[in-house]
Amino acid sequence: MRLRGIGGIGIGDDCAVIPIRRGHQALITTDFSLENVHFKRAWHPAETVGHRCLARGLSDIAAMGGEPVAAFLSLALPRSLPEGWVDGFLRGLLKLAAGFEVSLAGGDTAESPGGVLADIVVLGSVPTGKAVLRSGARPGDKIYVTGELGASAATLDLLSRKKIRSFDFPRHFYPMPRIDVGRFLRKRRLASAMIDISDGLSTDLGHLCEESRVGAEIRASAIPVALIGKPARKVELRFALHGGEDYELLFTVPRGKGVPSRIAGVAVTEIGQVTRGQGVFLEQDGVKSKLPPQGWEHFKKARTV
Amino acid sequence: MRLRGIGGIGIGDDCAVIPIRRGHQALITTDFSLENVHFKRAWHPAETVGHRCLARGLSDIAAMGGEPVAAFLSLALPRSLPEGWVDGFLRGLLKLAAGFEVSLAGGDTAESPGGVLADIVVLGSVPTGKAVLRSGARPGDKIYVTGELGASAATLDLLSRKKIRSFDFPRHFYPMPRIDVGRFLRKRRLASAMIDISDGLSTDLGHLCEESRVGAEIRASAIPVALIGKPARKVELRFALHGGEDYELLFTVPRGKGVPSRIAGVAVTEIGQVTRGQGVFLEQDGVKSKLPPQGWEHFKKARTV
Repeated sequence: MRLRGIGGIGIGDDCAVIPIRRGHQALITTDFSLENVHFKRAWHPAETVGHRCLARGLSDIAAMGGEPVAAFLSLALPRSLPEGWVDGFLRGLLKLAAGFEVSLAGGDTAESPGGVLADIVVLGSVPTGKAVLRSGARPGDKIYVTGELGASAATLDLLSRKKIRSFDFPRHFYPMPRIDVGRFLRKRRLASAMIDISDGLSTDLGHLCEESRVGAEIRASAIPVALIGKPARKVELRFALHGGEDYELLFTVPRGKGVPSRIAGVAVTEIGQVTRGQGVFLEQDGVKSKLPPQGWEHFKKARTV
Repeated sequence: MRLRGIGGIGIGDDCAVIPIRRGHQALITTDFSLENVHFKRAWHPAETVGHRCLARGLSDIAAMGGEPVAAFLSLALPRSLPEGWVDGFLRGLLKLAAGFEVSLAGGDTAESPGGVLADIVVLGSVPTGKAVLRSGARPGDKIYVTGELGASAATLDLLSRKKIRSFDFPRHFYPMPRIDVGRFLRKRRLASAMIDISDGLSTDLGHLCEESRVGAEIRASAIPVALIGKPARKVELRFALHGGEDYELLFTVPRGKGVPSRIAGVAVTEIGQVTRGQGVFLEQDGVKSKLPPQGWEHFKKARTV
């Protein structure tokens, strides 16, 4: 492990040594951010790439109801990369890290054989036995999402057609991991199961149902479809249903438990319920139809060179 | 975090949840293994790439005197990769993991924009406050290395000139992380400072001296120069001095403490001593000269396409 000489980050030992709070378990997640797979340098300013890189990991910690502790960055750079790019990348990453009191505690650097390659590792912790898993949903539980859905994918769709300004489209360029919401739900024991929406609602609800061995029914009219741009306009429903990288939380709550309409300043919306059956169904204009997972794979193709 | 569908590894949640032993701290290290930077598919059979990938991380845990707990693999694969390659890679990685009772507990997968890209994260633990750091060496301490040096770089040099069989050159293709030696040194409180030799003796001894703010003098005649191949022959001294990827341990021991000549079956050799000055010096045929770090960078160029 070596992460030296970039942005003043110097790590002195072979490993980082990190205390885990007494009575807590470690949470670990790793996520790639690869040029031309997860971002394009022509579309994404360096700061937003750094921000999004860390946001992916923090969002996984949020989805477990955990507390982030430290981040580790493996970064491979092509020889031709302008030096200012890395500065911007680290600025975006470190700014988000500071906001959550997460230290960048180590990592590795290498020369890339092609394109910028980043792998973020986030270490978190959670009181022993209290992590919110994907597997706890039960038939009859209500299904909720935080924030609005579809902003990120709709922005990506716009980006593929024209130049836009990143600060007009914050949900795509600067997604905020829902750490505070996840912590609230875990502490109040409200969520029976939780996942973050990184691959798209249809895909991630499918993952949650699979792990919980249940089905789900959601209502199209209830889905909080995002507004994007200036002037703001509603994105198409397909982006809210299948678009990835919103990093909102999707969670289930046993019937009878009250859920606030806002948690830590973020809107929380009931969109359907867990069923005894298999598969995810969408009710739209009085018609119920199967909703196959069309998230990640679909948009991956769209955004890969 | 997603690592699904390869080799039967299924991870159900956004993060892995890992207990850390009471009274222990977490150790974390991350290391890239990038095609055409750290290995070549034409030179390195898939199993050896998987083995070496994990060995890099385990060796960092060894260098802290730690116990490995779990590994996480981020793996990006080019679309054109033959399917059998990944099977071989995982076979090599999981075989080494099993030998150290380390579970592969998570990771991420992506499509690679070019070449096989792997990032290994190893989580370990060490009793609180007992990690062996690079910064504890004091003037007068004796300097030791485990095993033999130079085998890996000399093998790479051979590989660049002719086809060889991986099982005749185990130290390059199947390096064994010195977990047992590191644990022994930490438990007996023998090592005042420790590092693994991943970048080459001259470079890694330089790192240790820098962190400890001391100098070092080593004797060329004392360095355990590796024998490689069949029939076995001694490698050139330059490979032992500057060659990387041996994954032996380099450590210092206060004067007066006895060090066994073998620890956990591995030879341990005294090669010099820590000095009050700055820099690393080599004594050869009665002449003392400065030994600048010529490890990693040098061999990196040699092995990069």
